[in-house]
Amino acid sequence: MTVPSSVGIVAPQRARFDQPVTLQSGAVLPGFELMFETYGELNADRSNAVLVCHALSGSHHVAGVYADQPGNVGWWDNLIGPGKPIDTRRFFVVGVNNLGGCYGSTGPMSINPATGRRYGADFPVVTVEDWVAVQARLADRLGIECWAAVVGGSLGGMQAIDWTLQFPDRVRHALVIASTPRLTAQNIAFNEVARQAILTDPDFHGGHYYEHGVVPARGLRLARMMGHITYLSNDQMGEKFGRQMKQEKPGYHYEAEFQIESYLRYQGDKFTTYFDANTYLITTKALDYFDPAAAFGGDLQAALARAKADFFVASFSTDWRFAPERSREIVYALLHNGLNVTYAEVDCSAGHDSFLLDDPYYHGVLGAYMDRILR
Amino acid sequence: MTVPSSVGIVAPQRARFDQPVTLQSGAVLPGFELMFETYGELNADRSNAVLVCHALSGSHHVAGVYADQPGNVGWWDNLIGPGKPIDTRRFFVVGVNNLGGCYGSTGPMSINPATGRRYGADFPVVTVEDWVAVQARLADRLGIECWAAVVGGSLGGMQAIDWTLQFPDRVRHALVIASTPRLTAQNIAFNEVARQAILTDPDFHGGHYYEHGVVPARGLRLARMMGHITYLSNDQMGEKFGRQMKQEKPGYHYEAEFQIESYLRYQGDKFTTYFDANTYLITTKALDYFDPAAAFGGDLQAALARAKADFFVASFSTDWRFAPERSREIVYALLHNGLNVTYAEVDCSAGHDSFLLDDPYYHGVLGAYMDRILR
Repeated sequence: MTVPSSVGIVAPQRARFDQPVTLQSGAVLPGFELMFETYGELNADRSNAVLVCHALSGSHHVAGVYADQPGNVGWWDNLIGPGKPIDTRRFFVVGVNNLGGCYGSTGPMSINPATGRRYGADFPVVTVEDWVAVQARLADRLGIECWAAVVGGSLGGMQAIDWTLQFPDRVRHALVIASTPRLTAQNIAFNEVARQAILTDPDFHGGHYYEHGVVPARGLRLARMMGHITYLSNDQMGEKFGRQMKQEKPGYHYEAEFQIESYLRYQGDKFTTYFDANTYLITTKALDYFDPAAAFGGDLQAALARAKADFFVASFSTDWRFAPERSREIVYALLHNGLNVTYAEVDCSAGHDSFLLDDPYYHGVLGAYMDRILR
Repeated sequence: MTVPSSVGIVAPQRARFDQPVTLQSGAVLPGFELMFETYGELNADRSNAVLVCHALSGSHHVAGVYADQPGNVGWWDNLIGPGKPIDTRRFFVVGVNNLGGCYGSTGPMSINPATGRRYGADFPVVTVEDWVAVQARLADRLGIECWAAVVGGSLGGMQAIDWTLQFPDRVRHALVIASTPRLTAQNIAFNEVARQAILTDPDFHGGHYYEHGVVPARGLRLARMMGHITYLSNDQMGEKFGRQMKQEKPGYHYEAEFQIESYLRYQGDKFTTYFDANTYLITTKALDYFDPAAAFGGDLQAALARAKADFFVASFSTDWRFAPERSREIVYALLHNGLNVTYAEVDCSAGHDSFLLDDPYYHGVLGAYMDRILR
C-alpha cells in the first residue's frame, strides 16, 4: 500500500476548436478554446479516462501544483492522486475549465473575433448542456470514446447527470456528489440576489467593465460573502465562529467585530482578485436553468429513462443548499429506471462544502466505488 | 361574541423627552422624541396596558388606519383590535417607534442639535437595552407603572425579554414570539452582508447621503431581497413560487425570469421608497449585540434569574431564521428559574414571517393567554 501523495507538478493545456458551436440559447460561437489538465496515463484500450467537472468557482486545475506556483494546489487534490480515492496510478483524469469560464477557456474575458474587443456582456449565456456538448468535443480530441467515469460535485454533479442523458453511450459511471436535479426557489433566490449585486454595481458598466479598467468588485464581493453563508452549515458556522468577537467589548461601529464578519469579508475580498463577474453571472444562470425533468412535465424518472450509466450519488447531512432530499430524488428516479445506483448519505457537519473536504467515510465509499470500476 | 374588527382610525402621537439619555455605547443624546400610538382605554388602576415592540422594519403603527391613508393598515392589525387576540376592548395597547428609527422617533434622519444638520452616520448605535430604557420613559409619561404585558415578535421579542431583566417589577407578562436569546453566527452573517451592501453603495457617502440628495438604494434593496429569503421558509417559497417562470421558455438574459426573482426585486424596490438605510444598519447591530447571557459566561439560566414575569413563548416549525430550538432555550432557562411559562410551537409553513400572519392555532393560544391575564 502506497501512502497517498500528490500528482506533483502539472501543466495546463489549451485545446482550440475551430468548428462553430450553436448554444442552447441559439447563439453561435465561431470557435472556442478549452483549458484542461490531465493526470495519469490513458491505457491502451482507452477505458480508464475520468472527467472531473467543476462547480461555480472551480477550474481545470483539479490536482497537483504548478512549477512556478507551488502553493496553487488543485481544488480536488485531496481526492485525486496516487493512492487517493480517484487513483491516478490507474485512472487517466481530465479536468476542464468550462466554456464561459475565467481561467483560460473562451469566456467573457476573451476577445470577440467579431469586434476585436473582449466579449464582456456579449458572451452568450451557456447551460449545463452546452458545457457537456463542448466537453464531448474535448473527449473526441483526446481520443476518449467512452469515459470510465464522469465525476462532479454541486454544479459539477449536474454535468455528470447531463453526460448520461446527452451521451448515454459515452459514460459508464456517473458520480453525482452534493448535487440536485433542479434548483429550488430558495436556491434561485440566492443566485438572483448575487446577480443583482453585480448587475447594479456602478462599476459593472453593462458588463463591459474591462474597457473601463475596473471590475464590479463591490457586487462580486457581496455575491461571494452571501455564497459562503450557503456553503457552510449553520452548525459548523456556530462551531467555527459562534459569537466570537475580535475585541472583548462591542465597538458600536461598522468595522468587523464578530469573527464571522472578518471571515466573510476576507473571502469576499479575495474572490474579487481572481474571479470574473461576468463568469459568475453566466454560471448562476446555468444553475438556475438546469432541470432535465422540465421537458417531461416535471417527471424526473421519465427524464432519466435514457441514462445507461451506473451511478454513485452522495449527499451530506448538513448540506442545506442541496440537501440530501435532492439527492434522494435522483436516486429514486434512477432506481425506478432499473439502473445500478450506489447512494451514500454522509454524516458531515460542514454543509455543502463537505464535498471538497476529505471526510474519511465519504472518501472511503467513493474510493471503494472507483476501485470497483476497473475490475 | 363580537366579530373581530379594526380599531379604526388612529393617529400617531409624539412625546418629547428633554432629559439626556446615556446609551450603552457611552454616547449621550441631549434629548429625544418618540412616536407612538395607543388603542383602547387605560383603566382606572392602570393595570391593562400592553406594550407592543416592533421588529426590524416595523413602527409605532401597529393597528388601525390613518384618516388620510385608509390603505395604511398597522403591521399587527390582525392581532390587535376589538375581539382580536389582543382585545382593545379590554387592553390599552401602546405601539412605539424605537430610538434610531425612521418613522418619526429621533434617529439618523433627525436634526442633530449639535450641528444643525441631520445626524446621518453620527447617530449612535443603539441596543435593545437602550430601546427598552427609553420605552420606560414613555411608560412614565403615560403613567404606566407596570405593563400588563410586553409583546414582541423577532427583534420585538428580544425587547420583551429585556423588559423582564431591566425592569423586572414593571412587566407582569412577557410575550416572546419567533425570537431568540442571541443571534447565531449564520444570523450575524446575513446581517453583515446586508450592512456591507449598504456601506459599500457609492450613494452611502459615509452615512451622510441625505446631504447629497440621494439614498443608497442599491444596497438597501439588496439587503431587503436577502432578508426576504430568510423570512420565508424553503417549503413556502417552493409552494408559492417554485420554478415558475414569467415566460414559457428561458430568455438567456438577466431580466427577471423566475417568479421568485420578480417577487424579490419588487420587495427590494418597494423597501427603498420608505425605509432608511442608516436605521437598517443600526437595527441589525442591535440584533447582533443582544445576548443577555454574555455577562453570565453564556449561562442563559443565570441571565434570566432576575426576571419575575410570566412568559408566553411561541415559535414556528419552519422558521429557520430563529428556529424553535432557540425559543426552547429560552423556555428551559425560564423553567429552571421556576417561572411560569406557556410555550407554543406552531406548525406553520410560512417560516419566520409566520408571526405576522393570522394562523388560527397561533392566534388561538395567544388570545387564550391574553384572556387569562385580566381575570
